[in-house]
Amino acid sequence: MQGSSTTTIIKDGSVTTPKGFEAGATFAGLKAPKEGQLDLAILLSTRLAAAAGTFTTSRVRSPSVTLSQANLKAGPTRGVVANSGCANCCVGDQGLRDAEETTRLASSKSRVPANELMMCSTGLIGAELPMALIRAAIPNIQLSASGGHDFAKAILTTDKFNKEIAVSFNLAGTQVILAGCGKGAGMIHPQMATMLCFLTTDANIEPKFLQQVLNEVVDGTMNMISVDGDTSTNDTVLLFANGAAGGPQVRAGTPEAKQFQEALYYVCAHLSHEIVRDGEGATKVIEVTVEGAKSVADARLAARSVSSSLLVKAAVHGNDPNWGRVMMAIGKSGAYLEENKVALYLNDVCLMEHGLPIPFFREAVVATMRATTVRFRVDLNIGSSAATAWGCDISQEYVHFNSAYVT
Amino acid sequence: MQGSSTTTIIKDGSVTTPKGFEAGATFAGLKAPKEGQLDLAILLSTRLAAAAGTFTTSRVRSPSVTLSQANLKAGPTRGVVANSGCANCCVGDQGLRDAEETTRLASSKSRVPANELMMCSTGLIGAELPMALIRAAIPNIQLSASGGHDFAKAILTTDKFNKEIAVSFNLAGTQVILAGCGKGAGMIHPQMATMLCFLTTDANIEPKFLQQVLNEVVDGTMNMISVDGDTSTNDTVLLFANGAAGGPQVRAGTPEAKQFQEALYYVCAHLSHEIVRDGEGATKVIEVTVEGAKSVADARLAARSVSSSLLVKAAVHGNDPNWGRVMMAIGKSGAYLEENKVALYLNDVCLMEHGLPIPFFREAVVATMRATTVRFRVDLNIGSSAATAWGCDISQEYVHFNSAYVT
Repeated sequence: MQGSSTTTIIKDGSVTTPKGFEAGATFAGLKAPKEGQLDLAILLSTRLAAAAGTFTTSRVRSPSVTLSQANLKAGPTRGVVANSGCANCCVGDQGLRDAEETTRLASSKSRVPANELMMCSTGLIGAELPMALIRAAIPNIQLSASGGHDFAKAILTTDKFNKEIAVSFNLAGTQVILAGCGKGAGMIHPQMATMLCFLTTDANIEPKFLQQVLNEVVDGTMNMISVDGDTSTNDTVLLFANGAAGGPQVRAGTPEAKQFQEALYYVCAHLSHEIVRDGEGATKVIEVTVEGAKSVADARLAARSVSSSLLVKAAVHGNDPNWGRVMMAIGKSGAYLEENKVALYLNDVCLMEHGLPIPFFREAVVATMRATTVRFRVDLNIGSSAATAWGCDISQEYVHFNSAYVT
Repeated sequence: MQGSSTTTIIKDGSVTTPKGFEAGATFAGLKAPKEGQLDLAILLSTRLAAAAGTFTTSRVRSPSVTLSQANLKAGPTRGVVANSGCANCCVGDQGLRDAEETTRLASSKSRVPANELMMCSTGLIGAELPMALIRAAIPNIQLSASGGHDFAKAILTTDKFNKEIAVSFNLAGTQVILAGCGKGAGMIHPQMATMLCFLTTDANIEPKFLQQVLNEVVDGTMNMISVDGDTSTNDTVLLFANGAAGGPQVRAGTPEAKQFQEALYYVCAHLSHEIVRDGEGATKVIEVTVEGAKSVADARLAARSVSSSLLVKAAVHGNDPNWGRVMMAIGKSGAYLEENKVALYLNDVCLMEHGLPIPFFREAVVATMRATTVRFRVDLNIGSSAATAWGCDISQEYVHFNSAYVT
C-alpha cells in the first residue's frame, strides 16, 4: 500500500499510534471462549479531545448509541468503552441502564468522568448485556500506548481479521498522525455510518470542523459500502482529535483543513475497503464507479444500486460477465440516465457504448474477473459528477453462515 | 384453496377460461430446446377489449415495454404477443424495430391490427431478438380457447411451474370470469408492477376504472413481493376486459366495482404468492404483516423491508427464530415507529411486546418454522394501518444458480 500523495503509512499502526492515546482489552465472556479471545475494551485519550461521531439512522437503535450521542453532544470527551458479542439492543430501558453502568465502570477503571466516555456495542440483538461479567472483567483491562491492536481485535464479531491503519502527514509544520480501526462483517449497508469504526488523531482540530469533515468523508466512504443491504442498529463512527502533537488549531477553509480531510478520506476509504473485503462469505471486492452523472447524489444512488444488487453479486461470484444485471441495477436506482448514452466497462474492458452492447472476447473478460477485486465503471455521459461504491460477492457460504447464526 | 367469500375457483382455469379469449404458443428456439418447450405465444380477445397495464419504473426498460405503453395509451386493444428467453433490452434502437416487427407478424397471424397488440419479453438482457426464428415460428401458433395453459407455460424462464388461476363471480346478475397467469422467478422486487402477468376477464368494465383498480390492486399485491430485491427492466402487468359475458358496464363507485376489485385482488394476491413460492432457490414463503402503523405507506415500507432483508431470509432458511433481524429491518425501513410499543409474532408466537423480548420456548418456535410458509406479524401499536408483504428464503441454491446464469 502506498499512502496518498501527502500521507505516509505507518507500519503496524493502530489507534494508539497517535500521541496521547491508550487502549486495552480483556475477555469478559460475551463471545465464545477461545485462545486470545477479547470482547471488552477501552480507548482513551490522555487529555480531553475534540470528538465527532456519525450514528445509525435506524429507528431501532441500541441504547449504547443513545448514550454516545448524548455524551458527544455535551462537549469534549476522553474516550470510549466498546464490547462485542452483544448489541445491547431491543432490551427496553434496561439497555440504557446497562450502558450507563458500563461507562461508570470504565470511568472508575480509567479515572475519567463517566460523561466524558462513549459506548459502542456490537453482536446479537435482543439479549441483555451480562453485567455481572462486565463488572468482573473491566478491572482486568490494562491501558497502554501499545493497546491499539487489542482494541481493534476486541470489537470484531464475524470478522476474520483486524482492520487497522495509521498514517502520518505534515500539517502546517507539525507532523501529525491519524489512525483508525473498524469492524464488519454482516448487516452492512450503512445509511449514515458503518458498523463500529474508531478514529484517533493527535492533530489539533477545531471541534465544529471535525464533525463537518467527518460527515463529508463518511458519506463518500463508509456510506458507500454494502455487504448485504442490511443496516445495523448499532452503526457508529467516532473520531477523536486530542491535539497532543501540538501546532495551531486547524480551522475550516484553510489549506490544513483540506490536508486533514484528504488524510481522513484515505483512512476511511481504507477501512471501508477492508470491511467489504472481509464481508461474510465474500471472496472478492466489487468496486463500482459511476461517472458522467447529473449530480453526486445520482452517481451515489447508481453506484450503490450496482454494488448491492444480489444478482450482480452472484454473477461476480461466478466470474460471469452478465453486464445486463448492471444495467438493470442502474435502471432501478432512481438516478437519472439516458440509456443511449451509457457506456459500461468491466475491469476496463468496454462492454457497452452509447447504450449498445459491444461484442467482447468473453474468455478474456472471464479471466480478468478471477482477480480479488472486480471493477465496474459506468459512464452516464450526461454530466460531470462521479462516485464510487464498494461491495462484495455473495457466496453459498454467506447463506450457510447466516442460516445458523444463533442456532 | 377456498376462493374469497364472493368468488369461486374454476378448476384447471387459465387466461382463456373467460369468454372470448384465445391463446396459443410455439417453440421458436429462444430458450434451450427440450420436450414440450414453449417460448413464443399470443393471447387474444376475440373482440376489442378495454385494457389496463402497469409497467416497470426502471429507467432502463425494454422497447417491448415502450411499445406496449404506446399501444395501450392509444385505446382499446385485442391482445399481446409474448416471448421468453430474451428480454429485448439494452439493444439500442433495434429493440423497438424488433418489437414492432414482432407485433406486425402476430398481427398477420391473428388478423388483428398491429397497433391493437402489445408485446412482452422476458429473459437475458443485452441480446437482440433472433428475428429469423420469430418470423419462422409465429405462423405455427394455433390460437384456441383452450390455449391458456400453453400461453402460461411459454412465458416462463427460470420458473419451475405454471402460475395460473381463474375465478368466477356474480356481477349485478351476470356471471363473469376473471383469470390470470404470471411468471417469476428472479429479479423480483417490483416497483410498479411485477414480472410478466396477464389478466383476462369477460366482465364489462369501464376503461378508466379498469386502470385505476389495477393500479390499486397491484400496489397491494405484485408491488408487495420480493425474491431478490432486484427490479426487472421488463416488468409488466396487463389486464384485458372484453365484456363478452354481457351485462351493464361496471363503473367506479358502485357495489359491482367493489366486487370486481375484490376478485382482482384475490387473483393478483394468488399469482404474487405463487411467484415468491417459486422464487429462485426458494424453499419457503415469508409472509410479513405490519399492523398498527401510522399510514399504509409506512406499513408497506416496514413489511417490504423485512420480507426483502437478506439476513431475515437466511434466518428463515435455517429455521432460526432470530427476531432481532426483524427489528433491524423495520428499524432501517424509514417507517415511523416507537420501539417501546412494538409487538412481534413469529407464526403466532409472541416474541416481543412493548419493545421487550419475551422468553419463548425455542424448540417449539423452530418447529413451527419448518412449515412452507413462515409468518411474521409486527404490531407497531401507534396507528390503524396495515400491509402484508411476501418474500422467500434464500438458499445456497440461489447463489449457485445465479453465479452461472450465462456461463
